[in-house]
Amino acid sequence: MRFGFVNKDNMSLLTDLYELTMAQVYYKKGMNSTAIFDFYIRPAENRSYFINAGLQQVIYYLTNLHFTAEDLEYLRSTGLFEKEFLDYLKNFRFTGNLYAVAEGEVVFPNEPVVQIEAPMIEAQIVETFVINTLQHPILVATKAMRAFSVARGTLLIDFGLRRAHGTDAGMKAARSAYIGGFAGTSNVLAGKEYGIPVFGTMAHSFILAHRNEIEAFKNFIDVYPENSILLVDTYDTIEGVYNAVKAVKEIGLKQFKGIRIDSGNLLELSKKAREILDREGFKEAVIIASGGINEYKIKELLDRGAPIDGWGVGTELVVSADLPYLDCAYKLVEYDGRPVMKFSSKKRTLPFKKQIYRVFQDGIFHKDIITRYDESVENGRPLLQLYIKNGQPVKEFPPLQDVREKAINSFRKLPDELKDITASRQVLPELSQSIKDQIKKLEKKFLKRREK
Amino acid sequence: MRFGFVNKDNMSLLTDLYELTMAQVYYKKGMNSTAIFDFYIRPAENRSYFINAGLQQVIYYLTNLHFTAEDLEYLRSTGLFEKEFLDYLKNFRFTGNLYAVAEGEVVFPNEPVVQIEAPMIEAQIVETFVINTLQHPILVATKAMRAFSVARGTLLIDFGLRRAHGTDAGMKAARSAYIGGFAGTSNVLAGKEYGIPVFGTMAHSFILAHRNEIEAFKNFIDVYPENSILLVDTYDTIEGVYNAVKAVKEIGLKQFKGIRIDSGNLLELSKKAREILDREGFKEAVIIASGGINEYKIKELLDRGAPIDGWGVGTELVVSADLPYLDCAYKLVEYDGRPVMKFSSKKRTLPFKKQIYRVFQDGIFHKDIITRYDESVENGRPLLQLYIKNGQPVKEFPPLQDVREKAINSFRKLPDELKDITASRQVLPELSQSIKDQIKKLEKKFLKRREK
Repeated sequence: MRFGFVNKDNMSLLTDLYELTMAQVYYKKGMNSTAIFDFYIRPAENRSYFINAGLQQVIYYLTNLHFTAEDLEYLRSTGLFEKEFLDYLKNFRFTGNLYAVAEGEVVFPNEPVVQIEAPMIEAQIVETFVINTLQHPILVATKAMRAFSVARGTLLIDFGLRRAHGTDAGMKAARSAYIGGFAGTSNVLAGKEYGIPVFGTMAHSFILAHRNEIEAFKNFIDVYPENSILLVDTYDTIEGVYNAVKAVKEIGLKQFKGIRIDSGNLLELSKKAREILDREGFKEAVIIASGGINEYKIKELLDRGAPIDGWGVGTELVVSADLPYLDCAYKLVEYDGRPVMKFSSKKRTLPFKKQIYRVFQDGIFHKDIITRYDESVENGRPLLQLYIKNGQPVKEFPPLQDVREKAINSFRKLPDELKDITASRQVLPELSQSIKDQIKKLEKKFLKRREK
Repeated sequence: MRFGFVNKDNMSLLTDLYELTMAQVYYKKGMNSTAIFDFYIRPAENRSYFINAGLQQVIYYLTNLHFTAEDLEYLRSTGLFEKEFLDYLKNFRFTGNLYAVAEGEVVFPNEPVVQIEAPMIEAQIVETFVINTLQHPILVATKAMRAFSVARGTLLIDFGLRRAHGTDAGMKAARSAYIGGFAGTSNVLAGKEYGIPVFGTMAHSFILAHRNEIEAFKNFIDVYPENSILLVDTYDTIEGVYNAVKAVKEIGLKQFKGIRIDSGNLLELSKKAREILDREGFKEAVIIASGGINEYKIKELLDRGAPIDGWGVGTELVVSADLPYLDCAYKLVEYDGRPVMKFSSKKRTLPFKKQIYRVFQDGIFHKDIITRYDESVENGRPLLQLYIKNGQPVKEFPPLQDVREKAINSFRKLPDELKDITASRQVLPELSQSIKDQIKKLEKKFLKRREK
């Protein structure tokens, strides 16, 4: 019975077969000069910005990559690989450089969020994992920030582990949601591994296992007098609120943490619940809402005055329901000192090793400019930083709280029309004059060659 | 730097915090009688059936569950758990029973696909992981079968690893797609771990790294004379087909495996490519299409006569783009011998330990009937089987190929109106008279209690 867990010692095979067959061709043909690949996101209709995330895992991957004897034995068994190449893989390590935009930073379509510069075989083999490891965190951190942007300081908790696409997605969602401004997660392992605050309430099954609601509430409060969020909608929500109040009073507490409503008309129910709680002397008890929550519902409910203090956001966050995948790519832009460009179709690539400069006006984001790597832009802040040099990590990672703060600050500097969750405005980076000129030259050369 | 890998030794904490806080309450209150929980799927608008998958991993989880000293130390550090309960967790094992529908079987909404019968604490703690581990495999196996149902015997390959939500989703997608009728995957680790056939072609970067297409093709063919699928759309697709032919001829081969088209008008391009390949004597060379493929596009292209022999299906398969999550639940249906039912809202639950009987007419699926566990139905095949008894696995797992065959056979027995990918007909199981009567009794009892 194989679970299929991915770990440090088998992740090197978590790649598309063609990465390895192409690598063997490169190896046999001696094509292993320096290549530069860009990871970037293509425009998406319903996102004006993205929050960068997932980088730390990419760096872990690149600096731990190796093929075990078991890996090599499997590759041999496919009949596709020769002994010489398998021997080469035996000592394979990533020896290149990685430039990247910091986690938490706002990024836009067409920008090289990650740029890898390495011998061709190394840069190629890592493609699949790099895309896999960046896409979902960016999706979730962005979705989270959209919720944060309309939550007006109310508490946002990731409740999505059960509906994430597998175990790793559950971990990444918790981490990425936290980066995107969430206060914490229900995922205990994410709490342990990443130091994210963990939150929890109770399930309907807990109520149903008792003979009645009051008994269930009392049992919970008795064990967690300071930490009980009582779930009130198992039978009838308003009756549930009264039962919560009754249970707290019968136990003899002056205050309790709050209630959760998981279904029904959240606007009406939260208003009635607030009234009851206030009238009964529990002004500090919070109201948490959950069940199909997303940024649109949070905005609407708060706009209409729902007295909701916090949100359990699950499914729609962790699968990024209105945008379940990014149109993102990892493309060759330079090989052996030669700029490389894909002309076919509309999916053109941007050649050259590059830098991104961010320009602000009066403290507000104005534009990003993409340049050749060695250009500079006055008053522009370079976004791409060196994280791996010759295979070695060269940059300390900030604590996750600092990444979260960076994300919030980076978001806050956006102009209002980009912050709006219904905004469809697309920000694309400008190209520097120098890079534009050089692209024109390449186009001419390409057209000439085609005419022959 | 923490990657956050999930493995056998830390998966017990991959759960929602409330599972553990509720468990502590149960523990302290001595509420650990037998509970029965159902995992089931609620109706989805754009799915008429589901293919069951993910069960093997659930069984692995349940039979390996344990808390390590590190886990317990983390739980202690949260301040939420008392020493006595942590000591209990130290020796915690799953000692219950698991009944489930076999992997590969067609299932319908509201059916208990998995039924867990265990002491309350054990049955509760496993909730989050069980849902997480079943949902995504069912989504992908179902999406795969939809593609299989319209592919008319053409080859279907999972190309989705890079766009899956994390590493585990990439593994589960490959396995589930194979169950759902795919021929294989590009995911090498899935090939190794699950014995799934692996496939691969080449990337645009491979072409771009060479000075021209012909050189790139020749280098690849030279290393893989029998295994080259040449990617022809980097510059101009039709020119690419001619270059492929030229490269093969210059190398001196009589045949080659085929070409891949990843963009553009796949109908026109595949027709032209077929013409050229046939004319040039390469009648056996296949045409593989990729790029934004889903079951709707496969159907349309084949309906219109596109001579496409195989499909690389990626993103839309692995994230199940038109249904990125299941509305699924894990609900208490019996506790301590007492049937349990949630009445609030429309999300009612079905009380009692149950069995599902499948009834065929003339070899075609007719209906499913849900009964009490000890009822029987004439000519009905019981779907729920015992997989874990008192914590021990009691059923051999069939090879994955057999699960795939079961899925295909189970699908083939559906009536045509359910097989249609645009069908919106919902099949819901019937309830046996006995279970209906008993639900009515419970309702009466509940209403009486409410009137008091």
